[in-house]
This record gives sequence, C-alpha cells and structure tokens, in this order.
Amino acid sequence: MIMRKNIALLLEYDGSRYEGWQRQGNTDHTIQGKLEQVLEKMTGAFKEVHGSGRTDAGVHALGQVANVHLDTSMSENEIQDYLNQYLPEDIRALEIKSVPERFHSRLWAREKLYTYWIDMDEKSSVFQRKYIYTLGQKLNIELMRQSAEYLCGTHDFSGFCTGGNKKKSTVRTLKSVEMVSHESQLEIRMAGDGFLYNMVRIITGTLIETGQGRRKPESVVEILERGDRKLAGFTAPAKGLFLTSVVYDTPIFRKNR
Amino acid sequence: MIMRKNIALLLEYDGSRYEGWQRQGNTDHTIQGKLEQVLEKMTGAFKEVHGSGRTDAGVHALGQVANVHLDTSMSENEIQDYLNQYLPEDIRALEIKSVPERFHSRLWAREKLYTYWIDMDEKSSVFQRKYIYTLGQKLNIELMRQSAEYLCGTHDFSGFCTGGNKKKSTVRTLKSVEMVSHESQLEIRMAGDGFLYNMVRIITGTLIETGQGRRKPESVVEILERGDRKLAGFTAPAKGLFLTSVVYDTPIFRKNR
Repeated sequence: MIMRKNIALLLEYDGSRYEGWQRQGNTDHTIQGKLEQVLEKMTGAFKEVHGSGRTDAGVHALGQVANVHLDTSMSENEIQDYLNQYLPEDIRALEIKSVPERFHSRLWAREKLYTYWIDMDEKSSVFQRKYIYTLGQKLNIELMRQSAEYLCGTHDFSGFCTGGNKKKSTVRTLKSVEMVSHESQLEIRMAGDGFLYNMVRIITGTLIETGQGRRKPESVVEILERGDRKLAGFTAPAKGLFLTSVVYDTPIFRKNR
Repeated sequence: MIMRKNIALLLEYDGSRYEGWQRQGNTDHTIQGKLEQVLEKMTGAFKEVHGSGRTDAGVHALGQVANVHLDTSMSENEIQDYLNQYLPEDIRALEIKSVPERFHSRLWAREKLYTYWIDMDEKSSVFQRKYIYTLGQKLNIELMRQSAEYLCGTHDFSGFCTGGNKKKSTVRTLKSVEMVSHESQLEIRMAGDGFLYNMVRIITGTLIETGQGRRKPESVVEILERGDRKLAGFTAPAKGLFLTSVVYDTPIFRKNR
C-alpha cells in the first residue's frame, strides 16, 4: 500500500567529484541532485530532499543527514537497496529510517560535528591525497589550542564566514575544538550548534596561521569583535573537511557515529 | 659533477587510473612510462626503469621497488624532490637510494609481499571503493586457511597463472598466506619468492570460492598437480590488491615496510 512517509537518510559521500550538496539549476553534479534523481526514478515523482546543511564543493561526509517526504509502499530496507543500486559509487545511503511527519533534518539538528585533516609532512600518501590538506609544515599545536579556546562559546561568527545574508543571524555556539595528533597528521574536530558558510574552513585556516606563528592566539578575539572576514585566516581547502555527524535530541539511526 | 649512478626507488602508487606497471608503446598510462618520462625530463636522456615486477592494471603499491642507471649530479634527496614535483599525484617516490652498480630490483629480490582486501559487507565505505573488493558475502575463513596450507611451499603454480611463457619455469615458493579479519573486512597477506602473472589474484579467487563453500579446501591439490588454470577459481578484481613490499638480502631503504 502506497503511503506518505517522511524518510530520514544517513549518508556517506566522497565530495571530490561534486559541486557540493546543493542542487544547481541544470547540472546534476551535486549530492542533493543525485539523490533527487534516483528517488524520482524510484517513485515517479520529484520530491525535494532536505539536507541538514549544505556541504561545499569538495567537502566529504561520513554522516550527513537528510529527509524527504515520499509516497511509497517500499520498506526502509528496500529504499536503501534501491538507492545504493542507482546512486553513483561515491554516494552511499548508510541507513534509512521512517521518522515523524514533522521531522526536518536541518531544523531539528541540535549539533554538528566536523573533522578537518592536515598533513604536516611534505607529501601525503597517494591513497589519502583527496582527503587531507598537505601543508608540509610542522605546526605549534599548543598555540592552536589556545586560539581555539577563545573561539569556543556563543559568538557572532560573521568574521569567520564568507558572503552571508545580512538579515540572518550569524550568532552560533562553537561547543568544542579538539586537536588530535596522529604522527605527522593533525585532526581538528569541531562541534557546534550550526556552522556558517565556510566557517569550519576559515577557522581552520586561522588556526593553521596561529600554529605557524604568523598570528597570535588572541588575534581571534578581534575578529570575533569586529566581524571582519579580512582579519581572519585563509579558507582551508575543501578536501580536508568531513561532516562527521549530525546530532538530534532523539537518536534516529542505529549506526552510532 | 655528473656521475653514473644506479638509483633504487621505493614507490607508492594508486593503480586505479593506470594500465599497470609496464610501459606500452605510445600510451603513457603506465607507472613505468610516467617514471621514465619524468626522469628523461630531469636528465635529458631516456633510461629504462626496471621494476621488481609488473603490477597489473588497477593494482596498487605501497612499496614497489625499481632501479635505473642515471648520469646525474643530483643527490638522492634532489632526485626524490624532482620526481615528487613532476610525477602525477597518484605516484610517489617514498625514498631514493644509490645502490651498487650491479643491483637489479627484480633479479635481486628475495621475497615479495602482497595484500588482498575483501569486504564481506554488501557495500564498502565510499572512501575505500577503489581499494577493496566488495564481495558482500560472509566467508568461512577456517576453510580458506586449510586451503592455503596446501598451497604453501614450493610448487609448479602453472594452474594459478594466466597465459604464461611455456619456456619459463612456473615453479615458485609460496612462503605464507595469512588471513587477518578486521570486522567485515578480510585481509589476505601472501609472501613468496616471486609470483606469476595473475597468481595472487587467482589464488585469492580460489580461496574465496573455498570460503563460500563452493569448492573443497583440498581441491587446490589437483590444480597444483594438473597445472590446469580452468580448474582454479576466478581472478579476483585488481582493485583489492596491493604490492606491499619487496625484500632484499641487504635492506635498501630506511622506511621499513
């Protein structure tokens, strides 16, 4: 029996080949576009897929969450199998779950986790070349930690975002920034209630400049106060960034990430 | 001062985009061809690069070894930097070492180690899709181990190779086959004094059929005795295979692999 269902999707993708999450006019080189195409093929009707947020071109996801209202008689497993059969090999539905009618992947999201990978060696393994930013320079991680402490908390992050709609609030809560070393590789984990356009990458670029000794850890205070993007660091390359997970008040998926 | 040097190269490559190690006529979609091009650009003279063995199209390497006689005034480090600057991003010189005039990467190799990765889950992570064979089926590893025991030792492996020059010996010593489970992933490590064309992939295909219960562990004995390729299993896909390391009587490189 065909029923209207609100379906939540837990997604993994390699962003290398894509122009990001958000569907763009005629092109279909977006994650959202690919999903909508396969779902339209499956049900015969176009339905908009809502993502928890828009990942930029080249950004990867280990646990993006999306939802879509479908009229279908298919079970969760059948939908997952169908998606994984027809989606390109660099996008995968890890889990599919029926959720309450009112659930919205973006509006209901409580927290998001991102991870940024930096290689301090000159050249990374060829097998990681698309998934890590090769800086080739040792960083002072202690200075980066000090800088990150100033950034944590609830602030207007307009100095750490690109463009931006002046009518919308640029206040966000950055809950934590963790720096984890793995030999020559540095992993920066950020958790927050939401992130502005390019915010993770600009914070990362600013932290890198701090770790290089090119700016003081406390320089971020002025950027927060003045809200001037020009004062902040460079936008770190997309390929080192992963959307790790999206957290909701009630866990949706079995797979714990 | 320009001197004649025999240079050994420790190489890592992602074989996905290549037609294998061996240079082919006009095309340059081979690892050997790419290396020779860059070295010719560096020294102004074409010199043949000798590999320890020919990896097939799509096979990867974590520690391939090659050597080439060059007339150059450059140091080991300068050669390495030059190579890594001009080689494609999926081929990397991990280390460069001057070696005795008579050293030959293939003739002097005492042992080679290969690793084959199988995913018993239905779909692998999108980040591993080019580096693992997705079988999507549980295997009986104990049966595979029994079969592998019959294969170890010195045998005529002509039943486990493709084509082959009838004039050359097909006797090889398979020193060990180890099966290592990582949750849904199975890693098969093989060590031997040399491997025939497709030998690792045909042994792997045969072990997979054993683990599926489609053939008996002892069926490999007849394949060894009769030397009939048609009796052996399928050729497992190239993308799951890595040449891990090449061992010499005297270690050449600092990087221990």
